[in-house]
Amino acid sequence: MSIISELVKSIPPVNLSLEAEARAHLDRLTKPPGSLGRLEDTVVRYCCATGTSEPVFGKKIIFTFASDHGVAAEGVSAFPKEVTPQMVMNMLEGGAAVNVLAAHAGAEVRVVDIGVDNPLAGAEGLIRRKIRSGTGNISKEPAMTIDEAERAIEAGAELAREAAVEGAALIGAGEMGIANTTPSAALFAALLPASPAEVTGRGTGIDDESLSRKIQVIEGALFLHKESLSDPLQALAAVGGLEIAGICGLILGAASRRVPVVVDGFISSAGAIVACQMCENVKDYLFFSHCSDEAGHRVFFSRFGVAPILDLGLRLGEGTGAALAMPIIEAAIKIYNEMATFDSAGVSGEAP
Amino acid sequence: MSIISELVKSIPPVNLSLEAEARAHLDRLTKPPGSLGRLEDTVVRYCCATGTSEPVFGKKIIFTFASDHGVAAEGVSAFPKEVTPQMVMNMLEGGAAVNVLAAHAGAEVRVVDIGVDNPLAGAEGLIRRKIRSGTGNISKEPAMTIDEAERAIEAGAELAREAAVEGAALIGAGEMGIANTTPSAALFAALLPASPAEVTGRGTGIDDESLSRKIQVIEGALFLHKESLSDPLQALAAVGGLEIAGICGLILGAASRRVPVVVDGFISSAGAIVACQMCENVKDYLFFSHCSDEAGHRVFFSRFGVAPILDLGLRLGEGTGAALAMPIIEAAIKIYNEMATFDSAGVSGEAP
Repeated sequence: MSIISELVKSIPPVNLSLEAEARAHLDRLTKPPGSLGRLEDTVVRYCCATGTSEPVFGKKIIFTFASDHGVAAEGVSAFPKEVTPQMVMNMLEGGAAVNVLAAHAGAEVRVVDIGVDNPLAGAEGLIRRKIRSGTGNISKEPAMTIDEAERAIEAGAELAREAAVEGAALIGAGEMGIANTTPSAALFAALLPASPAEVTGRGTGIDDESLSRKIQVIEGALFLHKESLSDPLQALAAVGGLEIAGICGLILGAASRRVPVVVDGFISSAGAIVACQMCENVKDYLFFSHCSDEAGHRVFFSRFGVAPILDLGLRLGEGTGAALAMPIIEAAIKIYNEMATFDSAGVSGEAP
Repeated sequence: MSIISELVKSIPPVNLSLEAEARAHLDRLTKPPGSLGRLEDTVVRYCCATGTSEPVFGKKIIFTFASDHGVAAEGVSAFPKEVTPQMVMNMLEGGAAVNVLAAHAGAEVRVVDIGVDNPLAGAEGLIRRKIRSGTGNISKEPAMTIDEAERAIEAGAELAREAAVEGAALIGAGEMGIANTTPSAALFAALLPASPAEVTGRGTGIDDESLSRKIQVIEGALFLHKESLSDPLQALAAVGGLEIAGICGLILGAASRRVPVVVDGFISSAGAIVACQMCENVKDYLFFSHCSDEAGHRVFFSRFGVAPILDLGLRLGEGTGAALAMPIIEAAIKIYNEMATFDSAGVSGEAP
C-alpha cells in the first residue's frame, strides 16, 4: 500500500454526533442562544473534530514550510529567488511577521526546509526535511516526481504526528517560497477547477505585464501537464510545490490524530484542497484563517464552500493569518469552558 | 458653556501628517509593501490618533455600561427586564462572555451602572454612576431629560479620562441593557438616517410578531419626538438610552485624551454615531470591532462609511466584539514595533 493511501485510511471522520450535545451546552450559558455566532460554530466543529464534548486546549504550533520554485525563472515574482533562504534566516532569528504574530498569539513557529535551493548551512533551529533543492520549472517539466511528492507529504504528516504527541491543540499551516502563488494558482485551476485568469493574482506585487505573463505561464503549464491534472497527487507533482506538498501532508497527518488545522492563506489553501481531494474526511478538521487579498482566494472560498474567519486584506503568507485566527478559535473554546450557565449565575431565561 | 460643548472643544483632530512616516516605516519591514493589509492601516490610524509615529502600547480596558429601558414594557425583548441586574452581577462575578473574552485578550472589564432599575445593593466592584433608574418609555415620553443625557455623557467621559491617566492604550465600549436594541435602532433611524424597518432587528431573539411590534414602537417614538431628532443630543435624550449616552461620553472623553476607542456592536455604534455627530474629529479615533448579526448594523456600516474589523455573526454585546478585536489592533502595533527591516535582516528588496 502506498504512503498516501495508508495515510488517508488512518483519517477518521469527525464525530458529528457530538454536535447536539455541544450546542445544548452552549445554550445553557448566560447569553441568548446562538448569539456568539461563528464562535459557537467554531467550538462545535472543534468538539466534533477532536471527538469530545469536553475540549481541553493545548499548544498552538505553526509550521512554516519553505521551498523554492523552478518557475521563478519565468519572472512571475516581484522578489528575487534569494529571498527564500534570506527569509528562512529571518524567521529563525524571529524578525519576520509570522514570528511577531505567533508570539502575540502564544503560538510556536517551526520553520521547515522542505525544498529551499540553498544549503542553509548553520541555520540554527531549522527543521531539515529537504526533498530536493527547489522544484522543476513547471512551464517545461514536472515540478517533482510522484515519489518526491509522496516523500514531501510524508514529511509534513510526520511533523504533525509529532506535534500531536507533544499536545498540540491547533496546528497552523504556513509557507515561504518566492514564486509560490504560481503553482498554487495552477493547482486551484486544475482542482477547483477554475480558469487560470480567475485564480491568478499579483503575489508579492507584480505589475500588469508580469501578471499577464504569469497567467500565460500557468496556462502553458496546465496544457503541458494536462494528462496529470485529474488526480490530486499527480497534479501536485506536475504543477505544485514542495511546501504545498508538505502542507498537504501536515493536514493529513494532523487529521489522522484528530488535531484541527488552521490553514493560512492562498498557498496553504492549495495544500488543503489537495489533501481534501485525497480524503473527504479532511475538510471537517480545517479552519480557514482568512481570505487573502490575492485574487483567486475568494474564488476558492466560494467554490470550495468554506468561509474564512478573518478578512483583513492580508497577502503575506508565512502563517501570519493562521497566527491571527488561532486566538479566535481558542476564544471560542474558552467561551464553552469558562462561561457561567443560567442556573449557576441565577439569570432568568427567555420570556415565555 | 455647556458640558458637551466644552468636551467637544477639547478633542483635537488626529495628526494625519504622521501617516507618510508610519507607512514608510512599514515599507522597510521584511514583507512586500502593503501585504499586511488592514493591519497596516490599523497601526497607521493608531499612530495618527495617538499623535506619535513611535506607538507604545499599554492597558486595554473595556467599559460595560448597564442600564434599563422603559420601552421594555412594550414587549420588544425576548428576555425579561430583571436580566439586566442579573447580568451585571454575573459580569462582576466573571461569568459572562465579556469576562471570558476580555481575560483571553488581556483586557480589564469595568462594569458601570449608569441607569439600572435596581439598587444592585452589595454589588462589589461595580462602578456606580446611576443617573436614573432606567429611562422613560420612549413610545410615551422622552427617554431622559437633556440634563440627564449630559450627565450620563459626562460620567462616561470622566471614566475615559481616568483610564487615560492610568495608561490605557485602547478603551473598549460595551453595554448590557434589556431592550436596548430598540433605542439604538431609533437613533440610527433618526441620525443616519434610515427607515425603522431597515435598522430594526431581532435583538436577543424575538419572533416575527414581536419584530413587527418593535418596528411600530420605534416608528411611534420617532413620530412622538419628531421635533428632537435633528440634533444628536436632543435625539439621544428623546429616544436613546443611558448606556448609549455613557458610551457617547466615553468616546468623547477618550478622544479628548487621544486614546483610541474600540466600539463593540450595534448599541455601542449608536453611541458612536451620537458622539461623531457632536464632534467630527471623533471618527478618526474609533475602531469598529465587528459587524453584528443584528439587522441594521450592516446598514450602519455602509451608510456611515466605516468598515468593521471582524464579521463573525455575533449579536451579544457586552463588549464581546471589542474584546475579540483588541488583540488584532495590538498585533498591528507589534508588527510595526517588532519586525525586522530589510536592512537589519539582510533580505533583498523587490526585483528591479
